[in-house]
Amino acid sequence: MSPETPEHPALADFETVGWEGDAATGFVRLIDQTRLPTEFVRINCRDVATVWEAIKMLRVRGAPAIGIAAAYGAVLGGQEPLASGQDADKVRLGILAASTSLRTSRPTAVNLFWALDRIERVISCKAALSLGPAALLERALREALAIADQDRMICRDIGRHGADLLETGAGVLTHCNAGGLATADYGTALAVIFAAHESGKSIHVLADETRPLLQGARLTAWELQRRGVPVTLICDNMAAQVMKEGRVQAVIVGADRIAANGDTANKIGTYGVAVLAKAHGIPFYVAAPASTFDLATSDGSAIPIEQRDPREITHGFGRQTAPEGINVYNPAFDVTPASFIAGIITERGVIRPVNSLTIRNTLINS
Amino acid sequence: MSPETPEHPALADFETVGWEGDAATGFVRLIDQTRLPTEFVRINCRDVATVWEAIKMLRVRGAPAIGIAAAYGAVLGGQEPLASGQDADKVRLGILAASTSLRTSRPTAVNLFWALDRIERVISCKAALSLGPAALLERALREALAIADQDRMICRDIGRHGADLLETGAGVLTHCNAGGLATADYGTALAVIFAAHESGKSIHVLADETRPLLQGARLTAWELQRRGVPVTLICDNMAAQVMKEGRVQAVIVGADRIAANGDTANKIGTYGVAVLAKAHGIPFYVAAPASTFDLATSDGSAIPIEQRDPREITHGFGRQTAPEGINVYNPAFDVTPASFIAGIITERGVIRPVNSLTIRNTLINS
Repeated sequence: MSPETPEHPALADFETVGWEGDAATGFVRLIDQTRLPTEFVRINCRDVATVWEAIKMLRVRGAPAIGIAAAYGAVLGGQEPLASGQDADKVRLGILAASTSLRTSRPTAVNLFWALDRIERVISCKAALSLGPAALLERALREALAIADQDRMICRDIGRHGADLLETGAGVLTHCNAGGLATADYGTALAVIFAAHESGKSIHVLADETRPLLQGARLTAWELQRRGVPVTLICDNMAAQVMKEGRVQAVIVGADRIAANGDTANKIGTYGVAVLAKAHGIPFYVAAPASTFDLATSDGSAIPIEQRDPREITHGFGRQTAPEGINVYNPAFDVTPASFIAGIITERGVIRPVNSLTIRNTLINS
Repeated sequence: MSPETPEHPALADFETVGWEGDAATGFVRLIDQTRLPTEFVRINCRDVATVWEAIKMLRVRGAPAIGIAAAYGAVLGGQEPLASGQDADKVRLGILAASTSLRTSRPTAVNLFWALDRIERVISCKAALSLGPAALLERALREALAIADQDRMICRDIGRHGADLLETGAGVLTHCNAGGLATADYGTALAVIFAAHESGKSIHVLADETRPLLQGARLTAWELQRRGVPVTLICDNMAAQVMKEGRVQAVIVGADRIAANGDTANKIGTYGVAVLAKAHGIPFYVAAPASTFDLATSDGSAIPIEQRDPREITHGFGRQTAPEGINVYNPAFDVTPASFIAGIITERGVIRPVNSLTIRNTLINS
């Protein structure tokens, strides 16, 4: 289905990842983002393994969306014990086992662990110990739904805080996809752009295509086009040139994990864009919910970087584009040092300058 | 045919672009580089239009190789007048018409114009005015063959001069393809790497895949693999990360045109790599024959930048990877200011520092 066909979903139908039905028999429904932009396909995930595979294979991706999908996926782990008439402890164990499994799907995005921590806590706290098996599973689902609901509000707040940073007429470069498809909806980096656009500011976006999986070309370009925001697609290696030509007044990207000092892990290529922005005197912003901060990690050197399949680079889009047997390096993320970041846009406001103190002040004292 | 099959051509057979037969009835034979690395296919070009199309569509590419192909292509323009019994003036006009046409194939590479100037001069000079039609066409072919022969020697000299810049154990990052496939053989940037490797230095290459047409993944990786030089393929957006990790001790790239002050046009993405190299304290070298200098162009702002088809970005991998109707910016080249270039490696030695004076001294006084 092309974005132009009448069957194309309206914006309201555009739920990145959701839960259908009740706790006992419901399932996770998500947009298969690997099929965009040429096909709009939803997958129903009725077991933990299907959710795990969807996260691993980037059918659902983006730190906040991964967290939501994982939370729903953990609920699925309690369904079989409940259906087979087992007790609340067995339901709890099913959820915990699912959570343990889902933690192995992708190592870098901290929201995954944050969301699963929330589910584990809510079924293991004192108040939950007296619940029957059905009520316990419902409690887990309620927490997962709350995570998704909160994410929606957080994205709007990020948009509102960040929009003030953009002046009308600005060219904004973004890398990868930190849009509605990376969150419950509306996005983080793209939320800022959407909010500025909706407030009447004339914004033009330059979208890096983002090799190897082309989230910028496939997802960001698609989202911006659907919302009527002017966008120009470029290859990643053109970012420096458009900056040199004066077409970029700000860079805004998302984040997968932010260390206590502000060092930020995000899609591979982000660090390079940050270096280029600095060299051209362009402010580089990160937009992310508070759940993306990992205060237990003091700086970026301790963030584990996922390494992915070489075939994403050599056989990415239906044909072989490199010689057989070639060595490939395919890190999924890189870390941008805090010193390159002009500000981190969160639901609680813009953190700037970016350092351990300003981060702690915003996250803990507000 | 995969590089591993026994039918695969030996290095000796590996002629990027050559002339087969005599001046009157011969033809241009070139490797169709758009089919590499999965297929090794040669095309026989028997008319000017086929050569024009091969240059336009990047079947043959790389500034020196384009120059050679164009010179041979101009010879083809004289064959029909000769075959139909016309006089030397008509043969000359045929060659000149071919040259005029071939000049429109790609606007940025200056070697194209340089090589065609040589062909035009040799058939229009006083000594050529007394030649008969067959001898005139032979004279043009001799000049084209001389351009190719000289390019072979030039590449070896570039390799020799540049190899001294690399220490054993060095990681060398390159962008696009400035190898044997971009020249008569052996290359410019890759000549330096080949020469260092052949002298026994342990060199490891990081090859940017080079979107949109993936010359790094398809051509550079293939050439290095065939010559036994260790190579790791990366996406363009990983260059900053491998620099940060300390894997890169030098960057070497080719050039399509170098202005009088040293500003250098090369494949899109080169400028970004130069900025990143500077930020990481890594020397950035350009390797190119003297014919790449355009002393009539004072600086890079006057170099015309070819804009190419958006479909190279949106439909490059055999399937559509961006939404229908999306805006695309697709410059084929960018310009790296001389201030980012640690040295320009030519057949006459290494120019450094890079400025108008050192360039003039090397090109004119040596």
